[in-house]
Amino acid sequence: MSKNELTYPGGKLRLYVEAPLAAGTRVVPDEQQSHYLLNVMRARLGDRVSLFNGRDGEWSARVVDKSKRACALACERVVAEQSAVPDVWLCFAPIKRTPADYVVQKATELGVGVLQPVVTRRTIVSRVNLARMRANAIEASEQSGRMSIPDTCAPLTFDELLATWPTERRLIFCDEVGAAPPMAQALVAEREQPFAILTGPEGGFERTERAALHAHPFVVPVSLGPRILRADTAALAALAIWQSVRGDWH
Amino acid sequence: MSKNELTYPGGKLRLYVEAPLAAGTRVVPDEQQSHYLLNVMRARLGDRVSLFNGRDGEWSARVVDKSKRACALACERVVAEQSAVPDVWLCFAPIKRTPADYVVQKATELGVGVLQPVVTRRTIVSRVNLARMRANAIEASEQSGRMSIPDTCAPLTFDELLATWPTERRLIFCDEVGAAPPMAQALVAEREQPFAILTGPEGGFERTERAALHAHPFVVPVSLGPRILRADTAALAALAIWQSVRGDWH
Repeated sequence: MSKNELTYPGGKLRLYVEAPLAAGTRVVPDEQQSHYLLNVMRARLGDRVSLFNGRDGEWSARVVDKSKRACALACERVVAEQSAVPDVWLCFAPIKRTPADYVVQKATELGVGVLQPVVTRRTIVSRVNLARMRANAIEASEQSGRMSIPDTCAPLTFDELLATWPTERRLIFCDEVGAAPPMAQALVAEREQPFAILTGPEGGFERTERAALHAHPFVVPVSLGPRILRADTAALAALAIWQSVRGDWH
Repeated sequence: MSKNELTYPGGKLRLYVEAPLAAGTRVVPDEQQSHYLLNVMRARLGDRVSLFNGRDGEWSARVVDKSKRACALACERVVAEQSAVPDVWLCFAPIKRTPADYVVQKATELGVGVLQPVVTRRTIVSRVNLARMRANAIEASEQSGRMSIPDTCAPLTFDELLATWPTERRLIFCDEVGAAPPMAQALVAEREQPFAILTGPEGGFERTERAALHAHPFVVPVSLGPRILRADTAALAALAIWQSVRGDWH
């Protein structure tokens, strides 16, 4: 780490901001970020932190102004060019708060592009806290070195998802019933791009939902092995396998 | 589900017991299991539950006796033959309590055979609660349909791990630095069996540890992509990929 660079045990400190970033640009972090910088990291004038906004690359910025509650940063130089994650979506049935936080954080680290909650018939959790989902996605993007944050979408019902599906995108359906081919094998065989992954709620998809999925040509049913995976485990395992077969871990 | 079968949203109720299982055998669940059966599931005489012990297959058993605080079950018939998970170990640096619970649960669902905590130089967490680890492994085994629970081992230091390593077992080292080949590719190329996966603590392995790993012929360094994964994410992603390339998701 270079001199004056703010770090935590996981690496250097990176902050996601909305503002444009360019040489000399002055950026005022939001209230929560300022609190973190000043009171948790105890930043001093001249300390450096990395900024990214999903468009302009990653910039090294210096604390150029500070009061008790706020501070300002000035961009100095690009430390990493803008880059994109592979184009994969995760469509998942909302789950309880703690595993939902976990799925959003882990899926972000694993390089997901879009997080789409899907309310299926057996979905028990009725509300999705979108602000919390976005905050988790931003924090995980900052810590994982991503240059962009995933899109966090408002929930769709299962029927809405299928009715509005962009049919050129393959929907990898993690089917815990029946005899779908193993996911890695199915992904290798699949010619079309791009992809999305669909995982069900606790208790799985209903029979009618499975039938609807099997009836669509853009749906690719796959198996995640002989054991029963929790909803959050299935989502993360599927993303890891996708990255290793079709994504940027290849 | 058949009549009188106790279920929860994730499926049928399965209990891990130590006792031998055979037709007619009477099994007395431990205090916690009895509490769960009687007070949470409100089991009644004649209700059925599945039992497994890692040796004798899965048995359908009936509640044949109950008082306020205890009950007895009688094995009726085998509902699944005994089967093993693939032979893969997870060697992981201990992490904080919540992510540690998560790793143990998820790794168990993902079919790990052995859970081996490894204290590396940057490991911050000094104590491993083995009883808690085993309880988490048992619960996840019950819920995932596994026929056996993973071995939960006492921690070893990094040096002890390497000094006592069974050299015929490949140690897949998830290396976040350097230019190791992608994990799926490295696993396909690897001829030897069996395998173990090694993941580091927050902040990764130290330089000297990485050098020690690279010096051993049984170590296979691999990459898990361009983003920084948390310790728990790396462990689960690596296990999922292993299952899909060399395990029983293949």
